[in-house]
Amino acid sequence: MHIAIIGAAGMIGRKLAARLVAERDVAGQALSRLTLLDVVHPEVPETFAGTVDASIADLSSPGVAARIVAGRPDIIFHLAAIVSGEAELDFEKGYRINLDAARALFEAIRLENAKDGYRPRVIFTSSIAVFGAPLPLPIPDDFHLTPLTSYGTQKAITELLLADYSRRGFIDGIAIRLPTICIRPGKPNRAASGFFSSILREPLAGMEAVLPVPDTVRHWHASPRAAVGFLIHAASIDLGSLGAGRSLTMPGISATVGEQIEALRRVAGEKAVSLIRREPDELIMRIVAGWPQGFEAKMALALGFTAEASFDDIIRVHIEDEMGGSL
Amino acid sequence: MHIAIIGAAGMIGRKLAARLVAERDVAGQALSRLTLLDVVHPEVPETFAGTVDASIADLSSPGVAARIVAGRPDIIFHLAAIVSGEAELDFEKGYRINLDAARALFEAIRLENAKDGYRPRVIFTSSIAVFGAPLPLPIPDDFHLTPLTSYGTQKAITELLLADYSRRGFIDGIAIRLPTICIRPGKPNRAASGFFSSILREPLAGMEAVLPVPDTVRHWHASPRAAVGFLIHAASIDLGSLGAGRSLTMPGISATVGEQIEALRRVAGEKAVSLIRREPDELIMRIVAGWPQGFEAKMALALGFTAEASFDDIIRVHIEDEMGGSL
Repeated sequence: MHIAIIGAAGMIGRKLAARLVAERDVAGQALSRLTLLDVVHPEVPETFAGTVDASIADLSSPGVAARIVAGRPDIIFHLAAIVSGEAELDFEKGYRINLDAARALFEAIRLENAKDGYRPRVIFTSSIAVFGAPLPLPIPDDFHLTPLTSYGTQKAITELLLADYSRRGFIDGIAIRLPTICIRPGKPNRAASGFFSSILREPLAGMEAVLPVPDTVRHWHASPRAAVGFLIHAASIDLGSLGAGRSLTMPGISATVGEQIEALRRVAGEKAVSLIRREPDELIMRIVAGWPQGFEAKMALALGFTAEASFDDIIRVHIEDEMGGSL
Repeated sequence: MHIAIIGAAGMIGRKLAARLVAERDVAGQALSRLTLLDVVHPEVPETFAGTVDASIADLSSPGVAARIVAGRPDIIFHLAAIVSGEAELDFEKGYRINLDAARALFEAIRLENAKDGYRPRVIFTSSIAVFGAPLPLPIPDDFHLTPLTSYGTQKAITELLLADYSRRGFIDGIAIRLPTICIRPGKPNRAASGFFSSILREPLAGMEAVLPVPDTVRHWHASPRAAVGFLIHAASIDLGSLGAGRSLTMPGISATVGEQIEALRRVAGEKAVSLIRREPDELIMRIVAGWPQGFEAKMALALGFTAEASFDDIIRVHIEDEMGGSL
């Protein structure tokens, strides 16, 4: 089994590569080869005994998609993206990285497909940003897509392309709409959603965090570990039941900021909670007001995708995976 | 007022140009200049006294969009497309003509916008092919887009682009989803929907027509005259109430083939009806089975878009506009 990960140096990409190597097989087949690509050098999991091609390249640059596809990976994870805030600030870069690169990948596969029927499973990380206000709670699987950002638009368009290329038999694609990933390890990125993680991550590490929105703000979350689980599950299952639709909203937890803080209190105590400083930010409030608060995710649950059951679990996953298991 | 029509040599484009010239003004301003573009030479309406630039070019070719936009049209109608059957047969051409050309237009406008805020009204003809089975009857305005053809995918993607470019303030766009146009004048084109028109058009002209589907097949129709009316109305109205969504399903008539034939009987008599030859075609039946049967079109109706009230009217419009007013 040859697996390619595009966006392999990102937070999810690194965890995915590590888990694939640790689990040794995917969809019942032994992992023998890894192709890792990113715009910065992707780490190669140390314990992997198979063939690895780790390279620095931008999928949107001419020839890069063709080179990836020439190696005939059986499964391609396309995770590479710039985040919503950056896509809003840099219109051209957003369309290039978040849309044109995916299309270049699909096109490169289509050209190989024409030669001998090559048709890899392609797993694309879409986002709940394809949905925009006004939104119901919970949002059903068949709710219409009304993105309110360029990022969400780019994800929605890529979903449509993936469905059409799949329907035509060029790729075997699935788009999974990730919840907001919480708790994101490491430093804050440019996503407007950053505070959902930092109000937990920083206090757990004994540091102060800024909360720019009221406690009543509700949103949809899953852990990095759950996200990697979604990806591996998406690589393994039969997609025949999906029909022409190839996009699935992933399960998660619908929680308010207040509920996040209560979970922090239960897991890490009052002292951690006291490190959250409320500093309202009108711009972030306005952006977040248009975001989804919760989903049914019926199709994904029926197909066996699973996420955490509580925010306490999300915090415990962070402590286990990022903090060595204890505070 | 300077108006550009891309796809000006097509059936709708020609009728639109003629009507604009006949009405002399649009949105309360006198029409002084017309830019007509198509891949075959667009006719110039004879009675027009203003400046006309009619040229042969493909909007998807480098530089063409920039040239159109350099003339700073106040209103741009983008009607150019290849039909669903052709887009399904020629994947690359479909994406080039039905998607890349529109994006090139939006990009050309964005670059001009950056100079001095130029922001034309852009009216894009989308299609009910953005919807795919399973579909309710009637289909509400906020039903999710699940195109089952490359054509429908290309239209849905262009809708998303148009909404994002509008939200960002680069264009003032509106996508109108045309019903199937009935009765299409002239010869059959490569659209699988061709029979909806030919079972009326040919018998009205004393010729035989082939009906490839059962009488129970229901579909959504409006006349060419109504379609031109939609376009002109879309050029004239305030779009402020649309919010971030910029796509409107146009009103029309939901009718079965049997109801079409009954209308033909009422307007043109039994002899016309007897010219319809039933010749079932499994491929066309299968394609049509995934198509919409009727819409609410509430938003469009509230904004003042109007279509015919009966299929008898649709037939009468054809007799008036295409047959000199009598059989």
